Amino acid sequence: MSQPINVTIWNEYRHEKKNDKVASVYPNGMHAAIAEGLDVAANVKIATLDDPEHGLTEEVLNGTDVLIWWGHVAHDEVRDEIVERVHQRVLKGMGLIVLHSGHFSKIFKKLMGTSCDLKWREADEKERIWVVNPAHPIAEGIGEYFELPQEEMYGEHFDIPQPDELVMVSWFEGGEVFRSGCCYSRGAGKVFYFRPGHETYPTYYNPQVRKVISNAVKWAAPVKRDYPRYGNAKPLETIKGSV
Amino acid sequence: MSQPINVTIWNEYRHEKKNDKVASVYPNGMHAAIAEGLDVAANVKIATLDDPEHGLTEEVLNGTDVLIWWGHVAHDEVRDEIVERVHQRVLKGMGLIVLHSGHFSKIFKKLMGTSCDLKWREADEKERIWVVNPAHPIAEGIGEYFELPQEEMYGEHFDIPQPDELVMVSWFEGGEVFRSGCCYSRGAGKVFYFRPGHETYPTYYNPQVRKVISNAVKWAAPVKRDYPRYGNAKPLETIKGSV
Amino acid sequence: MSQPINVTIWNEYRHEKKNDKVASVYPNGMHAAIAEGLDVAANVKIATLDDPEHGLTEEVLNGTDVLIWWGHVAHDEVRDEIVERVHQRVLKGMGLIVLHSGHFSKIFKKLMGTSCDLKWREADEKERIWVVNPAHPIAEGIGEYFELPQEEMYGEHFDIPQPDELVMVSWFEGGEVFRSGCCYSRGAGKVFYFRPGHETYPTYYNPQVRKVISNAVKWAAPVKRDYPRYGNAKPLETIKGSV
Amino acid sequence: MSQPINVTIWNEYRHEKKNDKVASVYPNGMHAAIAEGLDVAANVKIATLDDPEHGLTEEVLNGTDVLIWWGHVAHDEVRDEIVERVHQRVLKGMGLIVLHSGHFSKIFKKLMGTSCDLKWREADEKERIWVVNPAHPIAEGIGEYFELPQEEMYGEHFDIPQPDELVMVSWFEGGEVFRSGCCYSRGAGKVFYFRPGHETYPTYYNPQVRKVISNAVKWAAPVKRDYPRYGNAKPLETIKGSV
Repeated sequence: MSQPINVTIWNEYRHEKKNDKVASVYPNGMHAAIAEGLDVAANVKIATLDDPEHGLTEEVLNGTDVLIWWGHVAHDEVRDEIVERVHQRVLKGMGLIVLHSGHFSKIFKKLMGTSCDLKWREADEKERIWVVNPAHPIAEGIGEYFELPQEEMYGEHFDIPQPDELVMVSWFEGGEVFRSGCCYSRGAGKVFYFRPGHETYPTYYNPQVRKVISNAVKWAAPVKRDYPRYGNAKPLETIKGSV
Repeated sequence: MSQPINVTIWNEYRHEKKNDKVASVYPNGMHAAIAEGLDVAANVKIATLDDPEHGLTEEVLNGTDVLIWWGHVAHDEVRDEIVERVHQRVLKGMGLIVLHSGHFSKIFKKLMGTSCDLKWREADEKERIWVVNPAHPIAEGIGEYFELPQEEMYGEHFDIPQPDELVMVSWFEGGEVFRSGCCYSRGAGKVFYFRPGHETYPTYYNPQVRKVISNAVKWAAPVKRDYPRYGNAKPLETIKGSV
Repeated sequence: MSQPINVTIWNEYRHEKKNDKVASVYPNGMHAAIAEGLDVAANVKIATLDDPEHGLTEEVLNGTDVLIWWGHVAHDEVRDEIVERVHQRVLKGMGLIVLHSGHFSKIFKKLMGTSCDLKWREADEKERIWVVNPAHPIAEGIGEYFELPQEEMYGEHFDIPQPDELVMVSWFEGGEVFRSGCCYSRGAGKVFYFRPGHETYPTYYNPQVRKVISNAVKWAAPVKRDYPRYGNAKPLETIKGSV
Repeated sequence: MSQPINVTIWNEYRHEKKNDKVASVYPNGMHAAIAEGLDVAANVKIATLDDPEHGLTEEVLNGTDVLIWWGHVAHDEVRDEIVERVHQRVLKGMGLIVLHSGHFSKIFKKLMGTSCDLKWREADEKERIWVVNPAHPIAEGIGEYFELPQEEMYGEHFDIPQPDELVMVSWFEGGEVFRSGCCYSRGAGKVFYFRPGHETYPTYYNPQVRKVISNAVKWAAPVKRDYPRYGNAKPLETIKGSV
């Protein structure tokens, strides 16, 4: 608990370079705003799509406790062998926090087993995120709700497996609701999906959004124990039939 | 409810043709024993690995309410495009019942998002399956427990997502436990994993095993409703910011 | 499945007798509108607070498969021994559907173990109920969402245990969300909480509300099996230490 | 995280005073062995049944982050108003760890809403506890399984609500299984049920048992946030119908 958590923030990092509006909101990239907002003892690394191996080498992943993922327009450019590598690391214990449009990333779809599809709309509308599980550590320090004055809408049905724990639900001005904070375990790893963060809005500067992500990093940090042994197993007790 | 359920039983159907012991237990194939045991109003079709398109054409799948899956030695021979087709059908509402060694099938791993690995042992040992959710329809007519005098052992850790509903847990003579009856929803479809059924034992003649599978067919039958609409959505309420 | 389900509708039945507005909406009592809306093969009985034993004698409860509960102003008048009796019947397998203000009934609080408190407001506002689990039988025949033009608001945090299965989430005009369709198992029985139904609105005439309740009756009907045996148990296997 | 956790260990403390065998195993009371085993930064208080107010005054409870509960023969002597007080504290955020025969305590039954009944047998038999959720913090540092050479048997069906997270399952020599590590949220508080700990065996000296309890204390510690506001709520958005 007292040791710093090794966090890698993966950002597609395309919008910021091509779109002036996004660049004006996130001049150093969305990853920089996310990193700045982490209120947790952490060693933070940045990895982006255009880095060699997307910045997710075996060495980087093996040294990562929690990986934060933001992607949108270039999901298809993420190479399958890197997705496979991230998948294996999650099953071995690495935490994964998938943000916003990462719902359609290869890694999230692979971990969920569903289409991860949803409704969406870009209309500068208000989002109000309600906490529905006040006992959950990801809700620590979060109000009953918090508001984002302008966000992209994501609406149900969100095609994900039922979360192991549902922590937040969004209300949208245009009439939709959304399961916005969703916890899962996958193998020895934990996965948290968090809805907000459209690239044209300053969402990752919001103190409550930053607190949620910080809480999620702590929650998703690996549990220290030996990885289970699988495969052929000798009996632990005498079997009569085989004597 | 009163209409018959369209059930397709998919069997790899290799052991029965190559192994005398298996052939003596299941002379007409495991699928025949499974079909015979269905105590539900159903139209039953059989599909096997060596059929064209593995017997799982678009037409067959579109006409299937519940697909039962038994595979073991030839998971890799199931073509990826057929797995993709089955996956899409499950998300659209088709029920899927995965039996025993099907835990390692491509379709189950794709739906679960985990390795689906486990411990195993072939030692002619006793399995006792306990019902842990007496309110669940899959437990209808099932005793507190039922026994299989000889089965292959599957032991924890079973690398699956936490079931939405856990219905049965196995005790094994050699000292292991296993989550043996696991319910999931995936998209508009339902998935049930049921542990027993090693090919060298007459498990699919067991009345309680047959009752569980019959109950699962009823439970997994599709819910009749329109498939959700995904993608860009017009607001249902006036959005102030965009006026 | 083909046998009719024995449904008892319990209504507090006070508002209708004392409040002209309610009487004009439900001239024969809310129970009559609920009974009329049941689209399921059922034998329907009515029981009300002012009946002897609140209409819930041992005989009535033993003959009830699914009990529907509507109460509001007189929760405290429900006698504890009757609550205990209903509780025992649920644990033995009877389904229970708790409607709207029944969230504060003694029986629901006893089954949940929490305060069951929530936010509320009477402001003639719009409610839109979204299906978040399209695979669930309670969603059969229900659209992506349905609207109630005027309802009482119930808002999060709703102090209930995390549902085993969450089927619906409400959007409210005034800015709140609510988990509106919640499934639980308790012992051998199933419990469904369904939010809508304030007494001054014609909610129980709404076809989608009626469909949800009808679906819930089918879902909550008891599973036919022997009740588990509890208490001291002889070993099923030889114990070495005790030989 | 860095602040010590305020832990109160509540022990019925009757067996140790009346039964020589128990006294020889736990000469200073079971609470002393449990306290000694806590490997977590904690301020530990002891409270017992025969203390005034069972040692659970308002002051003690308000200063308790996590309450550990062991009771067996005298559940009925725990006064209802103290049970009510503990219940309120759990809903407000206090963690509760219920050990072994505490399954039949008033507070556990009140929080679960079920009978909490089970099968049991005292036969000096072996228990092997398997971890089924390797990602869970309560499994930190725990092997794939651990063994207790002699324990009382508890067997399914265990009449509890389906756990939010199931962490451990027991195998018993006599042929039963049991859900042995069960996580719940109730209001703003978290509840963990942990099976082992019959009074005549040295279970609370076992290093793995102690590790589980220590992990559970950390997991169950309260989340720091304002308690939700319930009751009548003003709208956060303009409601057309009421203008």
